[in-house]
Amino acid sequence: MLLCAQYILPITSEPFQGGAVLVRDGLIRDVGTVDMLKLRYPDEEIVDYGLAALMPGLVDLHTHLENSVMRGIVHDVPYTTWITSILEKSAKMDVGDWYDSAILGGLEALSSGITCVADITTTGAACTATQKLGMRSVIYREVGAMDKRRVDYAMRVAENDIMHWREEVDSSRITIGMAPAAMYACHPSVFGKVSEFARRENAPVAMHMAGNREEFNFIKYGSSPFSVHTMDQKRGYVEIPPWLPTGTTPVRYALNWGAFESDNVLAIHCVQVDDEDVKKLKEYDVAVAVCPRCNAQLGMGVAPLTEFLRAGLRTGIGTDSPAATDSTDLLAEMRIGMLVQRAVNVGQFLDSATMLEMATIGGARALKLDDKIGSLDIGKRADIVAVDLSGSHQTPTTDPVSAVVNTCSGADVLMTMVDGVKLYEKSRWHVDVEVAKNIARVIEIRGKLRM
Amino acid sequence: MLLCAQYILPITSEPFQGGAVLVRDGLIRDVGTVDMLKLRYPDEEIVDYGLAALMPGLVDLHTHLENSVMRGIVHDVPYTTWITSILEKSAKMDVGDWYDSAILGGLEALSSGITCVADITTTGAACTATQKLGMRSVIYREVGAMDKRRVDYAMRVAENDIMHWREEVDSSRITIGMAPAAMYACHPSVFGKVSEFARRENAPVAMHMAGNREEFNFIKYGSSPFSVHTMDQKRGYVEIPPWLPTGTTPVRYALNWGAFESDNVLAIHCVQVDDEDVKKLKEYDVAVAVCPRCNAQLGMGVAPLTEFLRAGLRTGIGTDSPAATDSTDLLAEMRIGMLVQRAVNVGQFLDSATMLEMATIGGARALKLDDKIGSLDIGKRADIVAVDLSGSHQTPTTDPVSAVVNTCSGADVLMTMVDGVKLYEKSRWHVDVEVAKNIARVIEIRGKLRM
Repeated sequence: MLLCAQYILPITSEPFQGGAVLVRDGLIRDVGTVDMLKLRYPDEEIVDYGLAALMPGLVDLHTHLENSVMRGIVHDVPYTTWITSILEKSAKMDVGDWYDSAILGGLEALSSGITCVADITTTGAACTATQKLGMRSVIYREVGAMDKRRVDYAMRVAENDIMHWREEVDSSRITIGMAPAAMYACHPSVFGKVSEFARRENAPVAMHMAGNREEFNFIKYGSSPFSVHTMDQKRGYVEIPPWLPTGTTPVRYALNWGAFESDNVLAIHCVQVDDEDVKKLKEYDVAVAVCPRCNAQLGMGVAPLTEFLRAGLRTGIGTDSPAATDSTDLLAEMRIGMLVQRAVNVGQFLDSATMLEMATIGGARALKLDDKIGSLDIGKRADIVAVDLSGSHQTPTTDPVSAVVNTCSGADVLMTMVDGVKLYEKSRWHVDVEVAKNIARVIEIRGKLRM
Repeated sequence: MLLCAQYILPITSEPFQGGAVLVRDGLIRDVGTVDMLKLRYPDEEIVDYGLAALMPGLVDLHTHLENSVMRGIVHDVPYTTWITSILEKSAKMDVGDWYDSAILGGLEALSSGITCVADITTTGAACTATQKLGMRSVIYREVGAMDKRRVDYAMRVAENDIMHWREEVDSSRITIGMAPAAMYACHPSVFGKVSEFARRENAPVAMHMAGNREEFNFIKYGSSPFSVHTMDQKRGYVEIPPWLPTGTTPVRYALNWGAFESDNVLAIHCVQVDDEDVKKLKEYDVAVAVCPRCNAQLGMGVAPLTEFLRAGLRTGIGTDSPAATDSTDLLAEMRIGMLVQRAVNVGQFLDSATMLEMATIGGARALKLDDKIGSLDIGKRADIVAVDLSGSHQTPTTDPVSAVVNTCSGADVLMTMVDGVKLYEKSRWHVDVEVAKNIARVIEIRGKLRM
């Protein structure tokens, strides 16, 4: 199949006009001008997207697809209030609910040009959902226990889940890893045990890290709204001896406890970090997922994105939980992320090309999947999206990269392809899910959560 | 006509469910529950918007509608580079081009729920366009000359334009005022002369103020990319004696030159302001228009919005030039404005109710039109919009105000009414303009600008 469009954005090389991408056997087999490729492959089926951009599928470096049904339910409150409410709502969800919610999230991701998600889950819903939908994903099984005596049991259950999930999925498309739980809900010995598992099983690791001030205070000063006392009451945690201040930052705390002792580690948020933290992340080759909308929405602050880039960290962008950001839309995320950075750092003019790189090859590098995805290079998997640039809000287009980042949202996506299969074409689905039925189910679940 | 919806957001009082608004003779005649109003007015025509919010039309406190055709043409560059390019492009536009461009902007504003714009123009295109479309507007004729000897002539031409524009428009809907040009393009004596005109003619005044660092440096330190030297070369300005540093801030500079000496003054941007500036703005009852997307996009910084609110300034929100922000969408503006503020001031949790107030009654107060518009109060003009809340991204709705600000964009607007006339209903227009023809014209103009 020869995909053609006015603009080709390979990401790892310069954009060019009047281009085409040859897709065969799920792979990108050739990239060049339409004229040249038509000559080379005269009998190939042609799909022309016109005034649009063909680019690699977006890599959403941090999501919780299963939270999609909770979108809009708690708003205008800071992080601590939000997380408490979301946890309360979660208690009302059953296994089927989580699955349908993750399917909804996956559909939304595909329809907004996301071909690969990195998702943290305890239920496994995102694993089943991305397998079902034909998406690419890295699924991290979250594991945590504040009481040290429960850690080994929690690890056993998590490892057991991972073995089952691995059997369920197409391993060329879906990778299963492990994620230590939030620092305020996780005995530090979990970090070392997760690293050990990751080394043994060659599994990727992800963790929420230094996202909010409360976590920072909890780790460094031993006190915050997440104090053990609150958690004792709310969630039945027991810990002997009681929590003590560590005097260090969340990043160095995790480091000290062996969190970075495996090969493929992703730290999510990294808002409350200092220069020394950034150095350590670089030293241990830890990748970073920044989530600008979520961080702003919940009053968590702004990650020092330009510092990450300057330090040479592998960095990408995540939409985070739809319960915080409403939409799993990485195009909106790029734009708002760029505007927030420009608002904060007027001296460092972060441009749209950098944002688009982070949302594609950057995310792929962060997941160590850049040999397979993240750019339109010959030999890579055919994870490709077509984005419309013919709308009033995109015209006239001087620079297609700038147009994609500055003017597009999920609604402008024309086609999303994973492994050479078109899963989504503008309002049409080619997935093994009854979309209308999913919507109906989700509305039903929402009714339950409203109470 | 009885407009009904699941949610009524009067703004000046609490939102309520299952409500209706009675519109007669262009006015809001009654507001209450559907049941009550149906009993009271049994023969009234009913329009039910279902799972939607009825609220006052949005007041866009700062636009340049005539720049709509330039959207997307210059991107990813800081303010000084941007303004230079935009001025170059402007030289290619003729009178008809400006008019069609302003019509496009007006259509876009209406379709995204904006019923009233405050617009600065030299061409008058926004005046003719809003008159033609049936929108409400405050149009400020920009006037400026850097060479002192040209000031009186510039004032005469501007006053002459204003007299003509006044004859053209329905004065109950459109107000004409005056705007001193940007400080780096305006001899300071203009400020006093504009104030004098405003007092004499009871006209409103608006001015760009303290928007970017370069302007701040130009005024305070006498040097910046906007130095007189550059302008001499580029725009033929001559000034004797040469420009000298003033040692003060843009706000106090304008104040010293009499800029605030009339009754209805609006300052736009106010990013580069200190506490003393805010005090002075309050002392002289100057209203402020904040433009968060534009400020972020062009690396201008972040206005201290919470300081304005704390000081009790009349404050509203503007989308500013579509050449910078792409879309005339105040719903997107509210959301991004809120996220940027939360990102910058994590300690001060700006909420969505405050944003929606600024975009309605706040804007109306800033324009001193709050006796007429800005809320759903009995006796006010029927400037009303219906916003859909039935979409996936808005469900479940716990708080309709939060849903509007956090999840809606212009695309969710179902109906826009000005003076009791429905000008726009989801993809249908009731304006005295051939929309298709306008689009065709605008595409033609864009071709010209591309070069």
